[in-house]
Amino acid sequence: MITQRQWIYRKQPVGQITAEHYELVEQPLSTTLGEGEVLIEARWFSVDPYMRIGQSSKPTYDPDPHPLDTVQQGGVVAQVLASNAPGFAEGDWVQSYTGWQTHARVHMSALKKIDPSIAPVTTALGVLGMPGRTAWFGLTESGKPHAGEVVVVSGAAGAVGSLVVQFAKRHGARVLGIAGGQAKCDWLRDTLKADWTLDYKAFSNADAMSAEIKRLTGGVDVYFDNVGGMVTDAIIPIINRRARIVICGQISQYSGGLETPEMGPRLLQHMLYQRATIQGMLARDYLHRMDEMIRIVAPWVKSGEIVFEETVVEGFDHLPSALNSLFTGDHRGKLLVKA
Amino acid sequence: MITQRQWIYRKQPVGQITAEHYELVEQPLSTTLGEGEVLIEARWFSVDPYMRIGQSSKPTYDPDPHPLDTVQQGGVVAQVLASNAPGFAEGDWVQSYTGWQTHARVHMSALKKIDPSIAPVTTALGVLGMPGRTAWFGLTESGKPHAGEVVVVSGAAGAVGSLVVQFAKRHGARVLGIAGGQAKCDWLRDTLKADWTLDYKAFSNADAMSAEIKRLTGGVDVYFDNVGGMVTDAIIPIINRRARIVICGQISQYSGGLETPEMGPRLLQHMLYQRATIQGMLARDYLHRMDEMIRIVAPWVKSGEIVFEETVVEGFDHLPSALNSLFTGDHRGKLLVKA
Repeated sequence: MITQRQWIYRKQPVGQITAEHYELVEQPLSTTLGEGEVLIEARWFSVDPYMRIGQSSKPTYDPDPHPLDTVQQGGVVAQVLASNAPGFAEGDWVQSYTGWQTHARVHMSALKKIDPSIAPVTTALGVLGMPGRTAWFGLTESGKPHAGEVVVVSGAAGAVGSLVVQFAKRHGARVLGIAGGQAKCDWLRDTLKADWTLDYKAFSNADAMSAEIKRLTGGVDVYFDNVGGMVTDAIIPIINRRARIVICGQISQYSGGLETPEMGPRLLQHMLYQRATIQGMLARDYLHRMDEMIRIVAPWVKSGEIVFEETVVEGFDHLPSALNSLFTGDHRGKLLVKA
Repeated sequence: MITQRQWIYRKQPVGQITAEHYELVEQPLSTTLGEGEVLIEARWFSVDPYMRIGQSSKPTYDPDPHPLDTVQQGGVVAQVLASNAPGFAEGDWVQSYTGWQTHARVHMSALKKIDPSIAPVTTALGVLGMPGRTAWFGLTESGKPHAGEVVVVSGAAGAVGSLVVQFAKRHGARVLGIAGGQAKCDWLRDTLKADWTLDYKAFSNADAMSAEIKRLTGGVDVYFDNVGGMVTDAIIPIINRRARIVICGQISQYSGGLETPEMGPRLLQHMLYQRATIQGMLARDYLHRMDEMIRIVAPWVKSGEIVFEETVVEGFDHLPSALNSLFTGDHRGKLLVKA
């Protein structure tokens, strides 16, 4: 028997996530392993904006919301404590979807081994994992940037956005990164080599933001949107002919707007004017092409050509507040919680 | 000398078009023809929703609005009165873009001959012209309906919409036509063979409309949108996985909403949920594929397999009010003004 700690999702939030929506429980976990089973201990937990989508009471990409009174689902990097499965040995690093619990007994089919010699194991939750896949395929399959085109990225300092900025630069695009606050903008410019940056917090209305983005870029060919809301209102009127808008996230809407939609200006006529496209995408659609992404991106990670920033919160106890900070906080790159 | 009458576009409208925005003028026109010139007399005038877009003070698909104090541009079916150009003889039917004037001297390069043996000459302004091209390529290239899928058409009784309904049926799709009033809906069902119809005027809010469309269709695979506004708000939340939304028109927004956008609910998260696409399209993008469309559609027109309804307003004097009635009126199919 070992002690298993779990964050149980107890109550559907309306706006922001607070202490009342999760409960921390502790219980004994048998270490007796069935055929093909592995006992793992989580080392790193992923917190991702999609978790808040799963808490919407309305249908989203899944017909039903995350079930109440169960462990919060999510990606984890763990180590094998004991194994009754071929190919898994004590100490092995694995990726799993066991969520916010310190330990779990899982069938080997639910685990994916991580080779720590390729890159730091945490990259399985970032640049070489779901966020990397989202950034790579969202940009290349939906955004389709050409060299010289203008790519605008909202949420540009986040896990996905910070990779999109860099991938777009590698495609030869000129990139505007939009983020909240001067510190993030400085990082986008100095470290990620964005051509232009814009602090959305410095603007009180979409028209002023629109004018500044137009002044900087001349017009937008690809808009990779993680945020939605006013930033999107600012960009749609200044898209170029045949622009591609990729809807990867709408985090400005997650804390309430998915239940009762916020009101915003109707701008679909611009799609007609410019014969532009809005395309929604999800990482899961490209799961079967993970090897293709790794083959291209892993060498850049190894050589240091791609910056994969991580912001680490220490302590299992801080998982709910870390999730909430995705929507309010000052993290850069991938936000991880270290067990 | 003959007398030429012209409708001059005098003043940019803010909301609806009224008498003050146009002026009817009369003047002598020399009939002396230069090399390659043709004198034509307009028989049929097209009034189209795009004309109202050109009156927006903001940039649209063209950087500048329709110039003031010039003849209202537009498509015309005319007959040759006199010719100094090879291949054009008195009495020939031609299509031109000479707009709202009774007569014009034009270079032969600006004329396209119409073969009246293929179909009635007015079809050059409808099913075998710009509206037909819009319907055909908008549906097949952007909507891409599969047999058995649900296609929803807004503005379904209009020039483009009424063709989209029929083209979608020919693709084997199940079609919901949305129009204003029971008479149009009856026509959509009885004559155009729409599987379902919906009178948008019977709904005071998008949620109720959404529930009814969901009840009828089960969900929407292709939404061919001519209207925008509340109808679009009703459909976006009930799109199916990988739905295609074609933005062909947004006529609910033309009388004011292009200047100062109307407010509506933010719904782009549904694009993400369903990995759906919104694609704007314009007829001009497919001008080079006109022959391809004619080759497919003209035989259907000839055999009577496609209904190409026309609503005719008699008299050159009624052009401005006919244009305005596109946004308020009870016409079915293509609205034409007969000289």
